[in-house]
Amino acid sequence: MNQLPDPVDHRRPDYLIDPIFWRRWSPRAMSGEGVTNEELMRLFEAARWAPSTYNEQEWRFLYATRGGPHWAAFFEFLLPANQTWCANAAVLVVVASSTVFERNGKPNPVHTFDAGAAFQNLSLQGSVMSLVVHGMAGFDAAKARAALRVPPEYKIEAMIAIGRPGDPRALPEELREREIPSGRKRVSQIAVEGSFWRA
Amino acid sequence: MNQLPDPVDHRRPDYLIDPIFWRRWSPRAMSGEGVTNEELMRLFEAARWAPSTYNEQEWRFLYATRGGPHWAAFFEFLLPANQTWCANAAVLVVVASSTVFERNGKPNPVHTFDAGAAFQNLSLQGSVMSLVVHGMAGFDAAKARAALRVPPEYKIEAMIAIGRPGDPRALPEELREREIPSGRKRVSQIAVEGSFWRA
Repeated sequence: MNQLPDPVDHRRPDYLIDPIFWRRWSPRAMSGEGVTNEELMRLFEAARWAPSTYNEQEWRFLYATRGGPHWAAFFEFLLPANQTWCANAAVLVVVASSTVFERNGKPNPVHTFDAGAAFQNLSLQGSVMSLVVHGMAGFDAAKARAALRVPPEYKIEAMIAIGRPGDPRALPEELREREIPSGRKRVSQIAVEGSFWRA
Repeated sequence: MNQLPDPVDHRRPDYLIDPIFWRRWSPRAMSGEGVTNEELMRLFEAARWAPSTYNEQEWRFLYATRGGPHWAAFFEFLLPANQTWCANAAVLVVVASSTVFERNGKPNPVHTFDAGAAFQNLSLQGSVMSLVVHGMAGFDAAKARAALRVPPEYKIEAMIAIGRPGDPRALPEELREREIPSGRKRVSQIAVEGSFWRA
């Protein structure tokens, strides 16, 4: 079994935080092995506890497992650049969110923001379980909408590849070089007291 | 010092997850005490490590501290219903995100989703630190944009109230009743294999 590299050597938080945050990163190298249904449910369980406006929980996760009846369809949604490495994923997920409130049908202004929060819970739980969780914008949302019969009041937000860590040497060269936990801007570049500024 | 109620009695995860997820909730009762700059930076530090498309880190946090020069302006952005309880916050934050890529100026389709992920890191770190972190959609974004000179290519996503836990009995009655960790839909209502479904 392959081990994920420990990001500790590449990441130096400036302020004390729970290690769950900087240990999480977005690898692409996966082994092709499956994950159990229990493991997958643990990821969705984490997503479930995210905050949302009026506790709407407007996020929805549609998924396909390797070898399952929906895998080929989900794989076809991906752009070719993502298909290369996602061929070794165990699960592919389409994230959608309701653009209107369940309670009254009025527009929900933060449905995408809330979906991002749920996704982040899922990502962090995956990291805790030493699984690869990698969010993607590179897919054909219209194709996914049609194939999965996603109603018009739901927005398709992202796709997620989930799998077991694999050997980075099996990745195409341009991806292999990027298979390292990425750095970040300084806190002072993303947060400031008062008015907007250019970092 | 007030203690946050432990959500364990109100929340029963169906699948094993890190307790960081279900311990986090969104209280409104705050004490009016301040938080230190170090504490605030630890929250932004957690946000900093969220994933984003091409590692764009397109989230930006503008903040005002109680008693600081920007407090009155930020407080004015809030709708009256949020002003009631936010009067006891220590920090108010406006979250914005760049709608275009820093690298090439083209539209970023997932900027709001990424901002939601960063917000969730901040929320979880606040919970770890026993602080109140409460996201809000109820504010006047146009007023915030004008007052904080947020450029048009940035979207204003949400506001956040941050503070120390307070006595729930000091809340207005209708909020006092809601001052309890909320439940969630079942996993089977938010995740399914294959096509879209109605839960």
